[in-house]
Amino acid sequence: MATKIERPLDLLNASRGKEVLVQLKGDKQYVGTLCAFDIHINVVLDNAKELLDGQVKKSIGITFLRGDTIIFISPASTAAK
Amino acid sequence: MATKIERPLDLLNASRGKEVLVQLKGDKQYVGTLCAFDIHINVVLDNAKELLDGQVKKSIGITFLRGDTIIFISPASTAAK
Amino acid sequence: MATKIERPLDLLNASRGKEVLVQLKGDKQYVGTLCAFDIHINVVLDNAKELLDGQVKKSIGITFLRGDTIIFISPASTAAK
Amino acid sequence: MATKIERPLDLLNASRGKEVLVQLKGDKQYVGTLCAFDIHINVVLDNAKELLDGQVKKSIGITFLRGDTIIFISPASTAAK
Amino acid sequence: MATKIERPLDLLNASRGKEVLVQLKGDKQYVGTLCAFDIHINVVLDNAKELLDGQVKKSIGITFLRGDTIIFISPASTAAK
Amino acid sequence: MATKIERPLDLLNASRGKEVLVQLKGDKQYVGTLCAFDIHINVVLDNAKELLDGQVKKSIGITFLRGDTIIFISPASTAAK
Amino acid sequence: MATKIERPLDLLNASRGKEVLVQLKGDKQYVGTLCAFDIHINVVLDNAKELLDGQVKKSIGITFLRGDTIIFISPASTAAK
Repeated sequence: MATKIERPLDLLNASRGKEVLVQLKGDKQYVGTLCAFDIHINVVLDNAKELLDGQVKKSIGITFLRGDTIIFISPASTAAK
Repeated sequence: MATKIERPLDLLNASRGKEVLVQLKGDKQYVGTLCAFDIHINVVLDNAKELLDGQVKKSIGITFLRGDTIIFISPASTAAK
Repeated sequence: MATKIERPLDLLNASRGKEVLVQLKGDKQYVGTLCAFDIHINVVLDNAKELLDGQVKKSIGITFLRGDTIIFISPASTAAK
Repeated sequence: MATKIERPLDLLNASRGKEVLVQLKGDKQYVGTLCAFDIHINVVLDNAKELLDGQVKKSIGITFLRGDTIIFISPASTAAK
Repeated sequence: MATKIERPLDLLNASRGKEVLVQLKGDKQYVGTLCAFDIHINVVLDNAKELLDGQVKKSIGITFLRGDTIIFISPASTAAK
Repeated sequence: MATKIERPLDLLNASRGKEVLVQLKGDKQYVGTLCAFDIHINVVLDNAKELLDGQVKKSIGITFLRGDTIIFISPASTAAK
Repeated sequence: MATKIERPLDLLNASRGKEVLVQLKGDKQYVGTLCAFDIHINVVLDNAKELLDGQVKKSIGITFLRGDTIIFISPASTAAK
């Protein structure tokens, strides 16, 4: 990744408009386009899909995810490596 | 969604007066019309219904949901896609 | 509900002196007259009753409920719809 | 209760020097005389007794209870109704 | 107890240098001499002993206990009543 | 380690650009190059790999880990000792 | 211990450069030399070892432990008494 990451939120900023993988507590995963985030790590994903064991379980469209339940957020392109 | 989402709360703001799906910790889901929200993600839903496995379990009318137990909030129209 | 709900706490304010249903984490429910609440969603219920599966389990009189354990608060009249 | 309850802590204030029932997370209950409380809902009970299924399990004297684990606090006289 | 308890921390202050019983979440108990505490209810106990079912399980000497895991703190003399 | 560690974050600072092992609640482990961290202990790892029982389970590329779920962070060189 | 302990953090301060035993939630224990701590009780341990049932399970070198998961911290010399 060419972007310089000085602070953790720089990675989220560099990922706006791109597909990310969001891992929640309790093993739920979502993929979607990162539209927005804030300092509480609340995020909005567009075209969000819930995954189970790496398979798409259902589409939930645009969605607001509370930061409190998030474990990690990875740009999907690197997660797919 | 035509609205520009700069910050996560913009999605909630754009969803006022519309039906949303609210996912709580512990697999409970509610659908209802989003009347109000605040920065703690406390929300008020009107005509709220509790769902179990996607089926309406019971109607709970207008209700105040504490943000602390919320995982995600999706506009129902996109969730239904 | 005729009251205009701009912010989540407006619903609680409009419910003062009325019967509400309070859902706690861990499936406990209380019904009682909402006497008071604060921004932490601590509430005082009068004539509070603990419910189990929708049945009154016991009366606990006037009681202080800490907001931290609350999932939702619904005016009982709408919950009963 | 004749005291006017405007804010949740008013109930605790009105209960100083009286017996209260304190319900903790995880089903433990204590009864005792409410000596003091603060905004974190930390409380001091005198002549505190731990209850199990409504029976006195043991006496723990004067005790400091951290607010964090408290679900509700009821004046014992109303709880006994 | 002759000391006037106006605020919850007054009890802890009155217990400095005396033996206290500390109940943690998850049923662990410690007894020891209360050396110090702060507003987070972090405490230092000297000659601390871990109890299991009221029996000394092991001695852990002087120890720092984080307030976050504490349920109650009782002067041991009253707890032994 | 030659660096003087005065405050806990000094260790994270000294580990920038180096491989670290991150232990999460619930026994998940990640190794990767520490790119960035903040006072909430949110971190960004590059070339992150999820470990199970010390074996690489999958590669997740560059990733943002929320501090809230982290138990410990160790420079991998010392962890490998 | 000759050091006067006025506040809980005084014990941690007096333990810098000495071996401590750190008990985490979920029964994990670490021993190591206390290098640094802060008001969140984040700590850095050098020559840290993970213990299981009092036996060394593995060495993890120098490590950053988040305060949030810590139950107690004891100087190892007193814990070994």
